Amino acid sequence: MTEPLVLLGDVGGTNTRLGLLTSYGASPTNITTFRNADFGTFEDLLLAYSVMTHSPRCAGVILAVAAPIDGDVVTLTNCDWQITAQSVCKMVGANTLRYINDLEALALSLDHLPARSIQHIAGPTQPSDAAGRKLVLGIGTGFNAACALRSTIPLILPAECGHMTLPVETAEGLELRDFLARGRGRASVERALSGQGMVEVYQWVAQTAGVAAKDLTAAQIATCAVADSDPLCSKAAQHVLNILATVMGDLVLAYLPYGGVYLAGSVARGLHPLIAMPDFETRFTKKGRQSGLLQTIPVSLITDDGAGLLGCAALASPKNTLNMEQVA
Amino acid sequence: MTEPLVLLGDVGGTNTRLGLLTSYGASPTNITTFRNADFGTFEDLLLAYSVMTHSPRCAGVILAVAAPIDGDVVTLTNCDWQITAQSVCKMVGANTLRYINDLEALALSLDHLPARSIQHIAGPTQPSDAAGRKLVLGIGTGFNAACALRSTIPLILPAECGHMTLPVETAEGLELRDFLARGRGRASVERALSGQGMVEVYQWVAQTAGVAAKDLTAAQIATCAVADSDPLCSKAAQHVLNILATVMGDLVLAYLPYGGVYLAGSVARGLHPLIAMPDFETRFTKKGRQSGLLQTIPVSLITDDGAGLLGCAALASPKNTLNMEQVA
Repeated sequence: MTEPLVLLGDVGGTNTRLGLLTSYGASPTNITTFRNADFGTFEDLLLAYSVMTHSPRCAGVILAVAAPIDGDVVTLTNCDWQITAQSVCKMVGANTLRYINDLEALALSLDHLPARSIQHIAGPTQPSDAAGRKLVLGIGTGFNAACALRSTIPLILPAECGHMTLPVETAEGLELRDFLARGRGRASVERALSGQGMVEVYQWVAQTAGVAAKDLTAAQIATCAVADSDPLCSKAAQHVLNILATVMGDLVLAYLPYGGVYLAGSVARGLHPLIAMPDFETRFTKKGRQSGLLQTIPVSLITDDGAGLLGCAALASPKNTLNMEQVA
Repeated sequence: MTEPLVLLGDVGGTNTRLGLLTSYGASPTNITTFRNADFGTFEDLLLAYSVMTHSPRCAGVILAVAAPIDGDVVTLTNCDWQITAQSVCKMVGANTLRYINDLEALALSLDHLPARSIQHIAGPTQPSDAAGRKLVLGIGTGFNAACALRSTIPLILPAECGHMTLPVETAEGLELRDFLARGRGRASVERALSGQGMVEVYQWVAQTAGVAAKDLTAAQIATCAVADSDPLCSKAAQHVLNILATVMGDLVLAYLPYGGVYLAGSVARGLHPLIAMPDFETRFTKKGRQSGLLQTIPVSLITDDGAGLLGCAALASPKNTLNMEQVA
């Protein structure tokens, strides 16, 4: 083997996807997706993968994690796991480990995804500046953003947007906020913009209507809303979509992504036919004197579950070797 | 003259400051501040400055403007002026003109401001990463932000944060939002976070109290609030500070400025003794599971009115000559 093997991982709040990079610029191989709930620790999950892949010895590790990066130990935000760089490196014989935020990984994947993995869903089909900044929003177990900057080297601005203040625009919205904030002191954006958020918004809609909430998953609520087969699901989805439109418009004003907005995550995928509707666009672009700016922004959906791993692979290019060593 | 003379301008919503750069790396000279209201057009103002400075011929022009940058013609957001690159260049004999956003100019000034021009007002005295990203927030005629990225060359992320959705957190806040939105369809962040915003928040507080509002300027309201000499002014300032704390905390989550937050503008300067109070810090850092992150962020005030011009001068360094020519 002339080139080092790199272990790649995309550790989300619900699922973890692992893969191996056998040569720079190649596609990851041996890709396997695990449900986090099936394992007590990340190390247990990694052990299972090592057994499946015949205990590969890796020169380096790149892990995309749904958490802010600060030091060698990462505590996942929406899952009670702690990942320790030293222990992961020891398990696979690696010298270096680099963490990146899972949304950074998605942003890094944009230049490497095949056209079939990106589906235009709203706004103009072409951005005003194809080489301009791109904003990636992930709406799944949690909510977050990352901005891919226009630069000669991959340069991503990470964020913790899921913890921003939940927007309230009506008296009804204030009641929903109070429901989502109960026992928590406040409600952040991801209290509505996530799978669990959609379930709680649905429960609030049912409670407000004086109807018993069914035991539905976020995916089921989205499916019913898209089919318009259950009024409570439709109403819940409408609330989530209204909040998403406001937050997405606000984040466009914060990052000015003239290269477009890219949505990812299970909730975005489930609701995308409704994001494509004119109602959503009207609300997304309603920003007073800057509405014209919002109207130039194409909105697309990343349809490939493996995009995060592809972003990790992009970071492992020889150009970025130095980065890896610096950080590990 | 061995080096080109560069005309520098910081064109805000209320005042315009012009200066000349006689050599790269030097301080701007012939600095003059004009009130926009005294001139019908930017060209009139520039003519007055040319007369005062004996019609200098400039090789280039760098203008910081309170507006999004898109092409050769800039329309100021909070003032009805249009600036045309061609006409400005013609007036001073320049070949190139580069626009930057006024908050970008402030962000560019951070590495060049003397220590006395930056006053620590809240949070820890040292950032967790002195070389990390820095977030500049301007609260004056309007509201906006820019993020200075960690980079080997000056790299600033511009924004239009003043047009983001005004946060609402209580029933009272919803009433204030409705007051600020009257006749406008919506209320953006800068409907409260600006000089005019402070005046309107004060008018709402007076109306709610059933008292006639006095004819006070934003500066007077801030002075009374800081002195705690007028209950209505104190209450108005408290509403503005609560909104600022929420927005500032949300923007920290969007940009993760581990190098600190820097406030600028007349409203920030007027209210800074109240921003230094524990109440503000408590609200600014109240972001659930990310509160610890917020607590690591120092908050400082840029006290130098000339910071924007200094940022323009920084951009005129020989290293950035290429940029200038590309854009003009």
